[in-house]
Amino acid sequence: MSVSIFDSFLTTPGMIAVFDDAAIVQGMFRFEQSLAAAQAAEGLIPAAAARAIAGVCNAQLYDIPALIAASRRAGSLAIPLVKELTKTVALYDKDSAAFVHWGSTSQDVVDTALVLATREALKLIDDGLAQLSASLLSLAEAHVDTPVLARTLMQPAQVTSFGWKVLGWTAPLLRARERLRDAAGRALQLQLGGAVGTLAVMGEHGDAVARRLADDLGLKVADAPWHTQRDEWVRLGLEVAVLTGSLGKIATDLSLMAQGEVGELAEPSGNGRGGSSAMPHKRNPVSAMIALAAAARTPQHAASLLGAMGQQHERGLGNWQAELAEWPQLFISAHGALQALNDAFAGLTVDTGRMLRNIDALQGLIFAEALSIALAEFIGRPAAHEFVEGLTRRAVAENRHLADLLPEAVLASDSLRGRCDPSTLLALFDPVAAAASARRLAGRQLAALRRQATSFTTESR
Amino acid sequence: MSVSIFDSFLTTPGMIAVFDDAAIVQGMFRFEQSLAAAQAAEGLIPAAAARAIAGVCNAQLYDIPALIAASRRAGSLAIPLVKELTKTVALYDKDSAAFVHWGSTSQDVVDTALVLATREALKLIDDGLAQLSASLLSLAEAHVDTPVLARTLMQPAQVTSFGWKVLGWTAPLLRARERLRDAAGRALQLQLGGAVGTLAVMGEHGDAVARRLADDLGLKVADAPWHTQRDEWVRLGLEVAVLTGSLGKIATDLSLMAQGEVGELAEPSGNGRGGSSAMPHKRNPVSAMIALAAAARTPQHAASLLGAMGQQHERGLGNWQAELAEWPQLFISAHGALQALNDAFAGLTVDTGRMLRNIDALQGLIFAEALSIALAEFIGRPAAHEFVEGLTRRAVAENRHLADLLPEAVLASDSLRGRCDPSTLLALFDPVAAAASARRLAGRQLAALRRQATSFTTESR
Amino acid sequence: MSVSIFDSFLTTPGMIAVFDDAAIVQGMFRFEQSLAAAQAAEGLIPAAAARAIAGVCNAQLYDIPALIAASRRAGSLAIPLVKELTKTVALYDKDSAAFVHWGSTSQDVVDTALVLATREALKLIDDGLAQLSASLLSLAEAHVDTPVLARTLMQPAQVTSFGWKVLGWTAPLLRARERLRDAAGRALQLQLGGAVGTLAVMGEHGDAVARRLADDLGLKVADAPWHTQRDEWVRLGLEVAVLTGSLGKIATDLSLMAQGEVGELAEPSGNGRGGSSAMPHKRNPVSAMIALAAAARTPQHAASLLGAMGQQHERGLGNWQAELAEWPQLFISAHGALQALNDAFAGLTVDTGRMLRNIDALQGLIFAEALSIALAEFIGRPAAHEFVEGLTRRAVAENRHLADLLPEAVLASDSLRGRCDPSTLLALFDPVAAAASARRLAGRQLAALRRQATSFTTESR
Amino acid sequence: MSVSIFDSFLTTPGMIAVFDDAAIVQGMFRFEQSLAAAQAAEGLIPAAAARAIAGVCNAQLYDIPALIAASRRAGSLAIPLVKELTKTVALYDKDSAAFVHWGSTSQDVVDTALVLATREALKLIDDGLAQLSASLLSLAEAHVDTPVLARTLMQPAQVTSFGWKVLGWTAPLLRARERLRDAAGRALQLQLGGAVGTLAVMGEHGDAVARRLADDLGLKVADAPWHTQRDEWVRLGLEVAVLTGSLGKIATDLSLMAQGEVGELAEPSGNGRGGSSAMPHKRNPVSAMIALAAAARTPQHAASLLGAMGQQHERGLGNWQAELAEWPQLFISAHGALQALNDAFAGLTVDTGRMLRNIDALQGLIFAEALSIALAEFIGRPAAHEFVEGLTRRAVAENRHLADLLPEAVLASDSLRGRCDPSTLLALFDPVAAAASARRLAGRQLAALRRQATSFTTESR
Repeated sequence: MSVSIFDSFLTTPGMIAVFDDAAIVQGMFRFEQSLAAAQAAEGLIPAAAARAIAGVCNAQLYDIPALIAASRRAGSLAIPLVKELTKTVALYDKDSAAFVHWGSTSQDVVDTALVLATREALKLIDDGLAQLSASLLSLAEAHVDTPVLARTLMQPAQVTSFGWKVLGWTAPLLRARERLRDAAGRALQLQLGGAVGTLAVMGEHGDAVARRLADDLGLKVADAPWHTQRDEWVRLGLEVAVLTGSLGKIATDLSLMAQGEVGELAEPSGNGRGGSSAMPHKRNPVSAMIALAAAARTPQHAASLLGAMGQQHERGLGNWQAELAEWPQLFISAHGALQALNDAFAGLTVDTGRMLRNIDALQGLIFAEALSIALAEFIGRPAAHEFVEGLTRRAVAENRHLADLLPEAVLASDSLRGRCDPSTLLALFDPVAAAASARRLAGRQLAALRRQATSFTTESR
Repeated sequence: MSVSIFDSFLTTPGMIAVFDDAAIVQGMFRFEQSLAAAQAAEGLIPAAAARAIAGVCNAQLYDIPALIAASRRAGSLAIPLVKELTKTVALYDKDSAAFVHWGSTSQDVVDTALVLATREALKLIDDGLAQLSASLLSLAEAHVDTPVLARTLMQPAQVTSFGWKVLGWTAPLLRARERLRDAAGRALQLQLGGAVGTLAVMGEHGDAVARRLADDLGLKVADAPWHTQRDEWVRLGLEVAVLTGSLGKIATDLSLMAQGEVGELAEPSGNGRGGSSAMPHKRNPVSAMIALAAAARTPQHAASLLGAMGQQHERGLGNWQAELAEWPQLFISAHGALQALNDAFAGLTVDTGRMLRNIDALQGLIFAEALSIALAEFIGRPAAHEFVEGLTRRAVAENRHLADLLPEAVLASDSLRGRCDPSTLLALFDPVAAAASARRLAGRQLAALRRQATSFTTESR
Repeated sequence: MSVSIFDSFLTTPGMIAVFDDAAIVQGMFRFEQSLAAAQAAEGLIPAAAARAIAGVCNAQLYDIPALIAASRRAGSLAIPLVKELTKTVALYDKDSAAFVHWGSTSQDVVDTALVLATREALKLIDDGLAQLSASLLSLAEAHVDTPVLARTLMQPAQVTSFGWKVLGWTAPLLRARERLRDAAGRALQLQLGGAVGTLAVMGEHGDAVARRLADDLGLKVADAPWHTQRDEWVRLGLEVAVLTGSLGKIATDLSLMAQGEVGELAEPSGNGRGGSSAMPHKRNPVSAMIALAAAARTPQHAASLLGAMGQQHERGLGNWQAELAEWPQLFISAHGALQALNDAFAGLTVDTGRMLRNIDALQGLIFAEALSIALAEFIGRPAAHEFVEGLTRRAVAENRHLADLLPEAVLASDSLRGRCDPSTLLALFDPVAAAASARRLAGRQLAALRRQATSFTTESR
Repeated sequence: MSVSIFDSFLTTPGMIAVFDDAAIVQGMFRFEQSLAAAQAAEGLIPAAAARAIAGVCNAQLYDIPALIAASRRAGSLAIPLVKELTKTVALYDKDSAAFVHWGSTSQDVVDTALVLATREALKLIDDGLAQLSASLLSLAEAHVDTPVLARTLMQPAQVTSFGWKVLGWTAPLLRARERLRDAAGRALQLQLGGAVGTLAVMGEHGDAVARRLADDLGLKVADAPWHTQRDEWVRLGLEVAVLTGSLGKIATDLSLMAQGEVGELAEPSGNGRGGSSAMPHKRNPVSAMIALAAAARTPQHAASLLGAMGQQHERGLGNWQAELAEWPQLFISAHGALQALNDAFAGLTVDTGRMLRNIDALQGLIFAEALSIALAEFIGRPAAHEFVEGLTRRAVAENRHLADLLPEAVLASDSLRGRCDPSTLLALFDPVAAAASARRLAGRQLAALRRQATSFTTESR
């Protein structure tokens, strides 16, 4: 495995495999093989050379740890790889060896190999997003009518619909999926510029070689080599970071709602999941934990990409290499978070009873504003506000529910008595009614997001 | 001024004004005024109230430092502002005061005010980009045929065309302009959700009010309140960060090419520009300095936006506030960098003679690869490579130019003598010829970028 | 004010004043005045010149906005300042004007002015720390015996002492105070190197001038100019960042314990503090909010300092300027957070009853481990573990308290009946007893921290 | 290997081994073994149990990939490890199995294992620093008298001594070594708190167990568990980051001085070092590259540590895990940079002739200030300044050396002719003389740094 023990624990085997040493090296060989094939097709090198090269472009034939060790001296992984490839071709066909890596440069092969790996990484993320948004849409649909406390500044505020809250989590994921596809369409480009980005060695054939090579690898042909112009590439990384931010938002809410004292949601348990080594009764929110860890780390990884953009002249010194090393981390974290939340939502416990009890525990104070507005119809706003303020003060002081105090207070008020029906007012304290606005918004939004989710499946990826 | 003394020096008065205290406060008043107007139009509040509110929605009527001081206790700038606005309306019309900020919440007004300021900030950036890309396209056109050293890993590598290099700087700016417009189209949204994002107080009129308000302010209606779903907003900030990264890349190259020992470019001087307090002869690259400072700071400001995405429930505690405070910095830096580079390129000195001398000083070694390829035609690659390697060793040891050693070496070689004409080989040492590939690429790219640049002017902004 | 409207709200007027434009400019004048005095004392410049310079080294005599505007062209604030100072001296004494800034360089004056401001900033922080640690020690002492839930991974875990928890918050603050004093002792150094850090113009008098100047300003003499060796300086900034991290930890716990559903702590209210514009009943944790915002932003500001360390040669291009601009933010945030928490703890509500009820609501499950250990004495660990596991399953399934199920379960167990006294076992469910270990640790730690806190007051600062 | 292919290339096999999966797991077993031994010695568990546990605390007995896979579900590596250890002990001795991990918690074992690994990492860094500072002190000593251009804002400024410049690189390394030892002395602490940091299970024996355990592992006993109070730990990480910043400063200067157009320094070449795949003549500064990459990434890794400080209550959710995952990166980068610079300075080429030629190429303009000061003795500053300004203008316009113009200009000046000897003035243009101040400072500093460097070797580490 090519991640640290503390990373491996926060990501998925699938994403580890994408950026594994052997996978990257194989991507580099794939570039060299396709390059030779394209050059042969354009008549730049002999067809026999392309065949000879293709025959040995297989990572399993090489000692990868030795390549890595040599890369430390060379300053690039491509240099020992090209050297070993050349040697290996020469074993079989001496003349063809001279055509290995013809007209290309280290950065062409390394960047393109990373583009190929990134395409696989994005597929994993797209699949994870499809699954998570489907789960969330179902969850939202099931709970459009479920009242839950809305909380602002970490304090209970008013009542909303749990389904509406879940749609709030879902919409950014669908937007992320769309934006990632768009950014990938721009950034998954072939890198081919030769030594200094001018394709000088290939002369007038450069364009044609690039088109063939890009076609073969399924990549976009770049308008110009992007050796030191990383804007589209960095942007793709940043879109992944934004996604992880949105996943972190979900995990934040999940972890808060799963607190013992709130108890509205719980991650699935059992089968060694979320246990505690010292406290057997605990049910730890390990999915939220993984997503929160991802969200804590990712902004800095994104900053490293941005910070590495000032790459000098035609190839960067230190900054390009820093960018390469940070790049996989964005995907490692994003997919870990995505998979963790998929695990959580696949078996999430929603305690709607507890949601109601949490509303109830606030003694009706969160309905004070609605009450004030309703009373204003009869006695105007200032008087209504004053009346409600007095009532809430009493509720707090006497530790009673506002609804319990209301009827007698109405009767005791000269201005209200007989003008309004206390039982109508009591309807304001119904959590289901209080969630009506949220429910209305949720219904429309649910339909729109379902349409958006469906649109992805009909597109080619 | 609302930036620190060390910031003011790195940005522009124009951008400082956009995020100035008074400008933000006026944006908040503009929101309140438009909200009341929209609600009156929908019959939610009396038309007289909307008029009364409009009459005093003017930042100049208020003591802004006092508002700020009160915001520290309140936890939000909106609370004292709404309170003062209410009081002020009441001075003129007691009944209308109750309709101030009706059904809205602090975050609605603060976010929308920042959206309005950001729209102005983006206009400044768009204008700056138009100017800079125009300058660069002209510079590129003028120097398509100018040979200059290409440098990789901070070492001279081969010869390229200075125009081609400049186009490498330009393309990301045009892409940034396009992406910023796209991101703005998504992110410049009205914020209107009421206390917990359900628009509960406005009931079924919520949508209509939002549409009117958004129309009046010229903003997009959001699909849902984005109080704690900041993905599109953060993305807009990140696009600005990517732009600053691309500007930093230009500044990196500029500062390297302006070094005394390289001397290929120089920033304009005179009129107090770039002088030194201790060394009167110096001509400091102050524009590059400003852009480099922006590029050094921006990745972290971007990271703060990403790091603040995990906003709790229906309104964040601490993270929203952190995001607000970091937001202007991205624009402050970007516009500082953009203006600085505009200043630099408006009067840039290009020393094409020095560019040639720098090529010449490398004793022809950078043409070794081309020579080797040319000789391979006659004697095959391995022999050509060996021949050239020996020659370059001699050139270094004897401190002579490769072209000076070549004729006699050809004559001394049994395999080359008589088979190739030394004078043809010497043509390989012509920098202009060496830049041919770059020139070819540049010609096509220049035309494409000119088309792209023109397309912006015909769009509405 | 020299901070943005969104910053001003998160910091203190005191810290804003420290880094105010006028304060920085006055620090620069103070440097110039002291430099001239030191040079006159060493016979390098005429005494009359030093007097003439001293007479006009007063920020109020100058047009600061004009200086700032000129600094944009010059690339440094020092250049226009020295120019204006020279002109002003010349108005009174033409001959003396030539001795202004003699042998010094822009960075000498700017760095030293920032050192002087930083010293004031550190005093504010030291005072704030003294106050906050005193409050926390009193709070801890008052609550050494108060049981409260310990929570791990955001789930209730076991019982601890609230006093012990508070001491956990306090110790890092005392360590921070100590480390900040130490780091300040190393980093508050005079900057004096002249144009390139060799003090060439002052010849052999350089050392003596530096000693006099440092004495006069109360700063350390540096071993060597630190124009581009910023390690001690950056470290000082990082210590501030660590402090803000520790304040953020307190704010995290405070915000979690103040949630409506937890209700163990509440920030003081009243007088416009923490109200909500839409929900009159809310009591928002605005102090926690400010400290959390500081903790969210500070890591990135710290990263900018670290990222700016690679300053080129004898004076950095862009990175030094970036460091200057980020520097005040660390102090702005730290003092905002510190003052906010001081406000919070000055009037904190501790609901010890709610702490007990929160323990009780967990149905005794958090005592399961203690019960298992106690039973192991009689029946060995494996059997004890099995017995308790069965009991906790029943408690959850039947929604009953473990202590209620225990007596009959003991009687029903062949191996336990008659061997252990259920009433002794029930004592394990006493929260006060459960907090015994924490209380013991707290007592010792409280005494140690009190000693440490006292040690500061007897030191000179 | 447990780092990505792009990381392995930037660090050392030694540091990779320190944080390797097996090393971390072995550290965890070492904790468990020592804990049991300490508890047996205190009579808390049977001696036989401690022996049984010790017998199987060997990472090689376990399937590490399976442990990692299980850790994903469990939310911690410690949970499956303790489970497997318990099972393995039970294979041999069923009764002893119950005493595994007795009274401890996951975080105790994970944190302590990371502390143990970090101690090894710091030894590698300390050794690397010893070597690098020794090399640099020798280099400085050899070049105290070597004149080289001092450069400010990336422009040639004046002349300094190359030895003095090298001492500027060295001093921060010696300070770093000192600070790292100090920070390690504070931060390399045992973690032992039990489930919630109260050591409740061990009762009054907790302290004694902690002391024995710390002694056995060679760690400091903490004043209190630091599960969620990470200040000293983070500070240690930040000291490493500051070191990397100082290494990055050296690499910045090295890369600038190694540019082909400057040519004053060159990294060693040969043996596959720093070659180019496309350009055989290139000698790439690969050591500088590695150190620059480290310096580009490290600030963000440091920010992640700071950002993870707000760990909730008694154990963090997500942030602790993020901190663990980022921690090794700081050491991975620092040691990669250190080793790279050690490689570079072990075979650095210093071209003192080129240093002189670079000075000479500036046509004497950098001596203008010194000339002005010298002339002021005769004609006062204003006149001297005017005279020199005219002369420099001519030198630039006519592309001549200032020293060549000077004699006739003196003769042509009524005020200077006969009053000063041109040949004395010409001595000002001697680079060696111009470096005199630097040389004087260097001599003293060299002695002081030699003393400091020696002091480390006599200390125990």
